[in-house]
Amino acid sequence: MFHKRHPAAGARPGTLVLPEGAVPPKIHVIRYDHDQVEEIEVDDSAKLRALVVDGKITWIDVQGVGDEAVLRRIAEDFGIHLLALEDVVNAPQRPKIEEYADHLLMITRECQLSTKLELEVDQVGIFLGERYVLTFQEQYGDGLDCVRSRIRAGKGRIRHVGADYLAYAILDAIIDEYYPVVEGIGDDLERLEPRIMTRPTPATLARLNRHKALLLKVRRGIWPQRDALNRLLRDGSRFVTDEVRLHLRDTLDHASQVVDVVDSNRELVNGLMNIYLSVIANRTNDVMKVLTIMASIFIPLTFIAGIYGMNFDVMPELRWSWGYPVVIGVMGVTVVALLIFFFLKGWIGSGSVDGRDEEE
Amino acid sequence: MFHKRHPAAGARPGTLVLPEGAVPPKIHVIRYDHDQVEEIEVDDSAKLRALVVDGKITWIDVQGVGDEAVLRRIAEDFGIHLLALEDVVNAPQRPKIEEYADHLLMITRECQLSTKLELEVDQVGIFLGERYVLTFQEQYGDGLDCVRSRIRAGKGRIRHVGADYLAYAILDAIIDEYYPVVEGIGDDLERLEPRIMTRPTPATLARLNRHKALLLKVRRGIWPQRDALNRLLRDGSRFVTDEVRLHLRDTLDHASQVVDVVDSNRELVNGLMNIYLSVIANRTNDVMKVLTIMASIFIPLTFIAGIYGMNFDVMPELRWSWGYPVVIGVMGVTVVALLIFFFLKGWIGSGSVDGRDEEE
Amino acid sequence: MFHKRHPAAGARPGTLVLPEGAVPPKIHVIRYDHDQVEEIEVDDSAKLRALVVDGKITWIDVQGVGDEAVLRRIAEDFGIHLLALEDVVNAPQRPKIEEYADHLLMITRECQLSTKLELEVDQVGIFLGERYVLTFQEQYGDGLDCVRSRIRAGKGRIRHVGADYLAYAILDAIIDEYYPVVEGIGDDLERLEPRIMTRPTPATLARLNRHKALLLKVRRGIWPQRDALNRLLRDGSRFVTDEVRLHLRDTLDHASQVVDVVDSNRELVNGLMNIYLSVIANRTNDVMKVLTIMASIFIPLTFIAGIYGMNFDVMPELRWSWGYPVVIGVMGVTVVALLIFFFLKGWIGSGSVDGRDEEE
Amino acid sequence: MFHKRHPAAGARPGTLVLPEGAVPPKIHVIRYDHDQVEEIEVDDSAKLRALVVDGKITWIDVQGVGDEAVLRRIAEDFGIHLLALEDVVNAPQRPKIEEYADHLLMITRECQLSTKLELEVDQVGIFLGERYVLTFQEQYGDGLDCVRSRIRAGKGRIRHVGADYLAYAILDAIIDEYYPVVEGIGDDLERLEPRIMTRPTPATLARLNRHKALLLKVRRGIWPQRDALNRLLRDGSRFVTDEVRLHLRDTLDHASQVVDVVDSNRELVNGLMNIYLSVIANRTNDVMKVLTIMASIFIPLTFIAGIYGMNFDVMPELRWSWGYPVVIGVMGVTVVALLIFFFLKGWIGSGSVDGRDEEE
Amino acid sequence: MFHKRHPAAGARPGTLVLPEGAVPPKIHVIRYDHDQVEEIEVDDSAKLRALVVDGKITWIDVQGVGDEAVLRRIAEDFGIHLLALEDVVNAPQRPKIEEYADHLLMITRECQLSTKLELEVDQVGIFLGERYVLTFQEQYGDGLDCVRSRIRAGKGRIRHVGADYLAYAILDAIIDEYYPVVEGIGDDLERLEPRIMTRPTPATLARLNRHKALLLKVRRGIWPQRDALNRLLRDGSRFVTDEVRLHLRDTLDHASQVVDVVDSNRELVNGLMNIYLSVIANRTNDVMKVLTIMASIFIPLTFIAGIYGMNFDVMPELRWSWGYPVVIGVMGVTVVALLIFFFLKGWIGSGSVDGRDEEE
Repeated sequence: MFHKRHPAAGARPGTLVLPEGAVPPKIHVIRYDHDQVEEIEVDDSAKLRALVVDGKITWIDVQGVGDEAVLRRIAEDFGIHLLALEDVVNAPQRPKIEEYADHLLMITRECQLSTKLELEVDQVGIFLGERYVLTFQEQYGDGLDCVRSRIRAGKGRIRHVGADYLAYAILDAIIDEYYPVVEGIGDDLERLEPRIMTRPTPATLARLNRHKALLLKVRRGIWPQRDALNRLLRDGSRFVTDEVRLHLRDTLDHASQVVDVVDSNRELVNGLMNIYLSVIANRTNDVMKVLTIMASIFIPLTFIAGIYGMNFDVMPELRWSWGYPVVIGVMGVTVVALLIFFFLKGWIGSGSVDGRDEEE
Repeated sequence: MFHKRHPAAGARPGTLVLPEGAVPPKIHVIRYDHDQVEEIEVDDSAKLRALVVDGKITWIDVQGVGDEAVLRRIAEDFGIHLLALEDVVNAPQRPKIEEYADHLLMITRECQLSTKLELEVDQVGIFLGERYVLTFQEQYGDGLDCVRSRIRAGKGRIRHVGADYLAYAILDAIIDEYYPVVEGIGDDLERLEPRIMTRPTPATLARLNRHKALLLKVRRGIWPQRDALNRLLRDGSRFVTDEVRLHLRDTLDHASQVVDVVDSNRELVNGLMNIYLSVIANRTNDVMKVLTIMASIFIPLTFIAGIYGMNFDVMPELRWSWGYPVVIGVMGVTVVALLIFFFLKGWIGSGSVDGRDEEE
Repeated sequence: MFHKRHPAAGARPGTLVLPEGAVPPKIHVIRYDHDQVEEIEVDDSAKLRALVVDGKITWIDVQGVGDEAVLRRIAEDFGIHLLALEDVVNAPQRPKIEEYADHLLMITRECQLSTKLELEVDQVGIFLGERYVLTFQEQYGDGLDCVRSRIRAGKGRIRHVGADYLAYAILDAIIDEYYPVVEGIGDDLERLEPRIMTRPTPATLARLNRHKALLLKVRRGIWPQRDALNRLLRDGSRFVTDEVRLHLRDTLDHASQVVDVVDSNRELVNGLMNIYLSVIANRTNDVMKVLTIMASIFIPLTFIAGIYGMNFDVMPELRWSWGYPVVIGVMGVTVVALLIFFFLKGWIGSGSVDGRDEEE
Repeated sequence: MFHKRHPAAGARPGTLVLPEGAVPPKIHVIRYDHDQVEEIEVDDSAKLRALVVDGKITWIDVQGVGDEAVLRRIAEDFGIHLLALEDVVNAPQRPKIEEYADHLLMITRECQLSTKLELEVDQVGIFLGERYVLTFQEQYGDGLDCVRSRIRAGKGRIRHVGADYLAYAILDAIIDEYYPVVEGIGDDLERLEPRIMTRPTPATLARLNRHKALLLKVRRGIWPQRDALNRLLRDGSRFVTDEVRLHLRDTLDHASQVVDVVDSNRELVNGLMNIYLSVIANRTNDVMKVLTIMASIFIPLTFIAGIYGMNFDVMPELRWSWGYPVVIGVMGVTVVALLIFFFLKGWIGSGSVDGRDEEE
Repeated sequence: MFHKRHPAAGARPGTLVLPEGAVPPKIHVIRYDHDQVEEIEVDDSAKLRALVVDGKITWIDVQGVGDEAVLRRIAEDFGIHLLALEDVVNAPQRPKIEEYADHLLMITRECQLSTKLELEVDQVGIFLGERYVLTFQEQYGDGLDCVRSRIRAGKGRIRHVGADYLAYAILDAIIDEYYPVVEGIGDDLERLEPRIMTRPTPATLARLNRHKALLLKVRRGIWPQRDALNRLLRDGSRFVTDEVRLHLRDTLDHASQVVDVVDSNRELVNGLMNIYLSVIANRTNDVMKVLTIMASIFIPLTFIAGIYGMNFDVMPELRWSWGYPVVIGVMGVTVVALLIFFFLKGWIGSGSVDGRDEEE
């Protein structure tokens, strides 16, 4: 569940561990200024550096990390430190923001909730340089298409400001994707609540527990992100202008809010677990009450019947002609007395056996 | 439960997401100085900026955020950053205080407890400028009428000091509304306690749990508020005079106290949950005792009766004329012996079956 | 339980909310220097300010806050800010220490444990000025008489140092009163322990829970006090000399120790709750064992008796003259076999049914 | 359990509360330099100050605090502040390190575990002056003899460095005594584990709980000690040379490690409590299974026998000559069917009733 | 479990406590520069210092600490403080990084998981000097062979940079070994989950608890390591160049990630414990239901049969020729009514008795 791809202990730093079944990199470049947008699919990674030109913003998006040679070539061209490249490839890393000489590296984690409520995590490494943004994604995916669309549409500020704004836009898109994830989990928790009240099974508890683990995983993705953003905003960076800092403050707010919702949902899970255990306890109590009432009523009666089933020669009551009705009457009185006893204890009567229809 | 209105991931920053069924803005302006108070209902948002004049304090209260054009117009006139406007409209945001070039933005959350013990939350965004206060409320509401009344009445300091005092008065009114909320929850918890002791049902536990969630929600409203106030008091702000800082320190005290009460109530809820589980456990124990006593007494008796109900040809006891009374006697002795045994174990006797009448 | 007197939301700052049934203020003044002690009962609050003279220390003790006019008069004469006065009257406030232009305000909370183990809380506001100490107590009370006695006796440093030493003496007396409170609760917890082992009832748990709430309340009284003292010692204050700081460090130690004892007692309560639940679980287990043993022994026997109570025409055993003793023998063997089975499971034998006499 | 000797609230600061049954002070002085060691038993406390001479290190060890006059005399001679003396006598104080004009005061707590696993706590106050160390112990004791032996032996650094090294040696000896304490508790916890698995009684839980309280007490002794050392190392002190600071860093490591072990043991206790509750729950489950199996098998059989024990005139089966064997056969089939049912549910079969022999 | 080798309380600082059965030191030296690698087995510890020459990096690896004379000799030659030597020998110490005059000391803890899921811990002390690295390992072992291989192979940076890089490589290898440990525990936890759902025994819980203790132990090994690294990176050190700091930042990331995984696994253990308890509770509930259903159905029937087994002379029903079938019919109706009752309560029907087959 919490495995990480990592080189063998003692391996050289910068050793890349390509994920099993890693896909070969596809490189998509989008270059724009106020007036124009060019989109280029690049096959030869050696040509990438030349695409970055003055007066334009270039976004190089590398999807798939399945070819070490390509990755190393790009790293060399863009002056990427071996450790930074390792961080990008050997996912999952803790989200972080690190400043290097030529660029700012942001390691972020994209989350999506599958329809089966499983978490699909994809690490995105963002290098923010002077006039370019270079992103590495583990998988082919369209998570960042929304940003591309905004560039193409050209509305808003995105075409009029620097590469830092583009990096912000990408980061913001990634963090905003956490909202549907936590809300999806929250919705399922709400669906589980009535089920816990009426049909609690260990499977339900196991599912609650899985949700808890999911929430923990989400938290581990967003918390260090928030931390890193906080530090970036506090300390500043050469690569980030004041205007973009204002926007990053907004992104930080979103990250904080996601953390809040995750924590609320974790409390919700704990609460539901408590209810679960209490419902089970109540049910055991109910079952016991039924058993006790049935047994307490019929066992004494059976005893009385047993008495007069004995075969003693001398049992005067058996000879009386009123014997039988009297015994039946005694039994009836016993039953009534016991019913009253149980009623006074509150074990029988409206709702008390079931206990689910009593709310305000 | 914890949903937030937010634009689709990757949307342009500043994208407004009007709440479904949002009401069109109603704009109420109150302008005053030492001597005079004017109140104006404004229909045309374009005229608002002109209302702010030297020598007077102007409070522009916008209720309802259902018209994007109006909101954008106001934002433009008052130099409100798109991200700030987004914070005001896309509620709920985390409460916070941010300083911009032209004004201080306070995002606050107003809470009220409905008679059904549900939390009604309304976000209030407060822009504090040089000579004006501009508030945005999600809903039409009269939560701030108390402040208006104080302005009209003209007693106290409110008419003699600046816009910052007005902003303080609004903030203080909002935070003071938390008291009845937490007290209302606390009162209901106290009402629940005897019920948990006498009639615990899973529904009661679910209600406790709902209260816990409520308290969590209140905490999430007030905690960041307190945090933000704390930071504002520590760092100061161009828009806040020393006199008002003293008053804000008082508001901070109130916020801290609300947090304290919320936390105490959360502990109370946890305590009640423990009692709940223990009452259930005790009841199961009581039920078992009754069953055990009844079964243990009558099952042996029934067995004895069963013996003498056997149809063996040779069973000398059946022929004895004292057989029947002797067997009845043996049964009586058995019953007494068992009763003594149970009494010594403390399972029968005064109060032990019920267990609720033993406190000093 | 956690209610606070507070003005309606939106009221003017400085609005006083006199407690229901508040008592009219009684003002006791004690004025002293190295040589002399004067004690004066003052009826007319207007004369108070004049009592403060050079070369003497004046302690003005106002007990009862039931007369707004008097309070406002004093506040005016001594330059007390409206918010400070509000803090003093609208109890309970969080304990705190705030520096104003003319004086240092300490809000403290006096605690006493009634014989019924209820907490009696009385807020004491202490204004420490240049040559005077002004205290406000909610109730008439003699909690500070010990300080007065020390002044009268004139031993030790109290008559030779400034007003700050007097304020320290008052604060120290208030904090030292916490010791008997937490020790009283601790003693009762120790009394409860054997009872939980031998006679656990939900009432006992409710009492544990009440103690927990009490401890929480004490903690909420002493923790912010300690915090405020800590800050005062760190930052210093114009009104506090170095000699008195040394003494306040001692008071801070006491406050820290009270917090420690409170926290230990809270852990103790949690431990007792665990024991409680486990004792209940053990008892249910014991009850079940008795039931199981009785039922398992007699139900098979009754069945055997039932067999030979059948009325089939052809049941050869019934005709055998050894039939009856053989069946009785079979029953005896069954009983012995079952007893051995239960003994091997450890359910019967010395101590195992009761389980309370096995310790080391 | 957590009582402290303290003066009545409101007493003069510096009031000494001699412990009941306090022993009269015995004063042992050891004075040494590179070459020589003198040991002196002193009866007259007035002569102590004169023993401190240049060029030698003097260690004055006062055991027993039962004579206020002696204590006050020493305090006066060595310039000990009344509050410092109070800290030394009114034990237990929180361990702390405070710098005064003439000396550094370290309040420490010596712990030992009795053979009955009770904690014997003895407060040691250490005054470190220019050329002397003055220690106060509550009880007569030989806890510091190891340091004396090192002085006498004269190996290592102890005779060649200043009084601060001596104070360090004493402090180190005191903190190292915590190791056997926490290890003793840990060992007993390991002894308890198998007992909890096989014979859980509330007494065992109570013992676990006592261990938890013990660990808490140890933690309260060592934690503030570590804190104080940390602060001393960070801020430095006139009385401590750089060489000794290096050694104190080592002592701090030891204190940190003791805290670690205490915390690990606390987790261990919590884990054992969980196992305890689960073992009880499993046992109840086992008991119930036996009851259910016995009852479910024999109750239906008894019913069948009951049918043919009825005395109706017309019951054709009773007349059949195969009636009896057929009924016995039906009963046999019933038993087998129920056994198969219980076997399929996993309630009977190898190990399932007991459940303790299944591990890997 | 948490024992530490430590000298008797009060022993001289620097006292070495050789582990029982400690192995005599084997000294392996590897000396290299860009071009050349020499490997030397050294028998005479007196010659070690001379091996450190300018222009080369020397790594002296001492395996085994069983000979005090050798250790003291090395310490003297390399200027190792007695306390530092004590830290290296008296394992386990808390991992830490301390700067001395001649070298930087890193105390680290190597972890490996045995096939029986036991933790094998080996302390490694690393002294980083100007041109040498000196390591002490408790046991003979090949944990650092991977680093030696990299030196021999000569690829990467290791042969071209200073001794600090070598120390980093060793530290990194040690920390990377934590990954398989925490993943091994995590895998076993996942294997335990289905077992808890289907066959929960106290032994399973005890195993969960052991895993929890293991995780705690791992955390205690890695947490202070991370802490120390953090401080080293923040404060810098004379012995660490900027290039190596970049690499240590990567190592810190790894340590943080290990802590994250440990914490996630601890949450997982807690979740599994909850499931465990709930499965037991559900099983008790199931057992009770079977008992209740069987008893509730057959006890009334047996009673009815008992009635007509009575021997009264006058029992008209016994004489009716339809008596027997009517009674059988009444019994049948009773059974059906009870079955319907239990079905409506949800106690019988598909899956409800077992409760494990209901998930979506």
